[in-house]
Amino acid sequence: MSRESYALLILDLMGTFAFALNGALTAVRAARLDIVGVITLGMITAIGGGIIRDVLLNRLPPATFQDWRYLAVAAAGALIAFAFAHLLRRLSLSIMILDAVGLSVFAITGATKALDFNIGPAQAIILGTISAVGGGTIRDAFLGRVPTVMRDDLYAVPALVGATIAVVASLLGFYGPVTAIGAATACFLLRVAGVHFNLRAPRPPGTRDRAAPPGQD
Amino acid sequence: MSRESYALLILDLMGTFAFALNGALTAVRAARLDIVGVITLGMITAIGGGIIRDVLLNRLPPATFQDWRYLAVAAAGALIAFAFAHLLRRLSLSIMILDAVGLSVFAITGATKALDFNIGPAQAIILGTISAVGGGTIRDAFLGRVPTVMRDDLYAVPALVGATIAVVASLLGFYGPVTAIGAATACFLLRVAGVHFNLRAPRPPGTRDRAAPPGQD
Amino acid sequence: MSRESYALLILDLMGTFAFALNGALTAVRAARLDIVGVITLGMITAIGGGIIRDVLLNRLPPATFQDWRYLAVAAAGALIAFAFAHLLRRLSLSIMILDAVGLSVFAITGATKALDFNIGPAQAIILGTISAVGGGTIRDAFLGRVPTVMRDDLYAVPALVGATIAVVASLLGFYGPVTAIGAATACFLLRVAGVHFNLRAPRPPGTRDRAAPPGQD
Repeated sequence: MSRESYALLILDLMGTFAFALNGALTAVRAARLDIVGVITLGMITAIGGGIIRDVLLNRLPPATFQDWRYLAVAAAGALIAFAFAHLLRRLSLSIMILDAVGLSVFAITGATKALDFNIGPAQAIILGTISAVGGGTIRDAFLGRVPTVMRDDLYAVPALVGATIAVVASLLGFYGPVTAIGAATACFLLRVAGVHFNLRAPRPPGTRDRAAPPGQD
Repeated sequence: MSRESYALLILDLMGTFAFALNGALTAVRAARLDIVGVITLGMITAIGGGIIRDVLLNRLPPATFQDWRYLAVAAAGALIAFAFAHLLRRLSLSIMILDAVGLSVFAITGATKALDFNIGPAQAIILGTISAVGGGTIRDAFLGRVPTVMRDDLYAVPALVGATIAVVASLLGFYGPVTAIGAATACFLLRVAGVHFNLRAPRPPGTRDRAAPPGQD
Repeated sequence: MSRESYALLILDLMGTFAFALNGALTAVRAARLDIVGVITLGMITAIGGGIIRDVLLNRLPPATFQDWRYLAVAAAGALIAFAFAHLLRRLSLSIMILDAVGLSVFAITGATKALDFNIGPAQAIILGTISAVGGGTIRDAFLGRVPTVMRDDLYAVPALVGATIAVVASLLGFYGPVTAIGAATACFLLRVAGVHFNLRAPRPPGTRDRAAPPGQD
């Protein structure tokens, strides 16, 4: 394995861990779940987006499902969230940062993997974004609530931006470690800035931007 | 491209546009979404059913995902709904008619495409119906509500009738433009009559047909 | 067809029937559905888990979708639930037993089918469990509620135990009718004991085990 793809694997596993931890914590807060529910939803958050991407690319069985390392890391992240949910609240900033790393890595690697499968650039951008946000979207559907990615803070937009930079760089023929890191950094900074400045994607004109009704979150 | 398949493509794209517009409008009304949510749910409504059909047929990547025209038309319909949601309320009759055209086209083309893949007639009828109603069903699951197709007006039944006529005509060897138009017309008229006369599919015996609780829709 | 695989088919169809009946009854109780919704959710409960397994195994079209006998048996079970929902309440013990048979058969056959597709043991155990509990999980997502398997009684754990026994026996090279029956019996007894003694999977530490809020079920 080359040094580069080794670095990529480490980053990918870090993202998987962060997504599983954060996804499972969200599940613990949102509903009265048992250990089966917490671990299932943590693992779905971590590898669900990549599975949808791989189904749409006809790349079955899905890579992250076949590779036991992803399953083990995802299960470990979810298990830690299950056991220490009440302690982890204090670490919410660190977890958000780790989650933003996962978002950036998944968006960029998801989009470039899609390009390898002879699919158009628009489709590759969509698949990169799905890799990054699809798992959390399915988790929220199982929690019976409108996915936060569709209504709350800036989460899908940074992924879209990162995936677009990576795809455009590939089309222009200069995709490499530098542009990959650049695209991921753009996604990461936009995500963190979005949280810090409480940015939101536009809402339909004429909709009042009232607070969420109680119990909605 | 033959004149016939050109006509079919136009109808298919019209249906895609109508589904995306209507699906996104429904999403705007049902939940406090941002632009990401509205466009995602509009596109899922438009091409989600066809994607499930193609997964079950092992026809991957899904046709409407690979063909950028479907993605572009679906995104345009959803974007128009996002921008003009409050104006489009006045056009609800026209939108319902356009949506009924989409329902009819998707049910018939979905069922006949399935027959090309060496699958049984019952499966082809199911897949035609899924092509027509599957996208809206997934949209409703993401909106956290019981899919309207499972509880409200006559929506799946017209699709089932249209798909059945098309499949039976194919099995008897006289499927062609005339029977296709006949099957689609039957679906369309049944759908429009259902809305006009407020017809509903039967409910379990012993269930009171009370009104929906407030906030359910 | 050998005598053994004939017995397996009968058991599989029995499980399909029980799942469709029970799934449709749950749907009738949980929401105001029409006949389309009841039959759709009954069939999804019965064959949804096997379809997810087959997608992840790249075994498309899914076996239970291609074989009309599964579709017919699932539709029959759901239709009976639709027509006789109020009478079937009295038979809840028998239905629970039948459902536990389905759970056991699906977990064991799901796991061993997965092993035939050159997939790792952890993946086979997960796929056996998904075969057994995946359909009900999707049904609950469509009903807009947190899946009962993630929060309520012991349902996924018996399936996991049965699938694990079957996979371990296969790896050790002595999987056969006797071990299959043993694994299924372990799953069945654990499920029935769970219902009888009201056992539950552990919840996150620090969570109060309060009763479900009214209307949640």
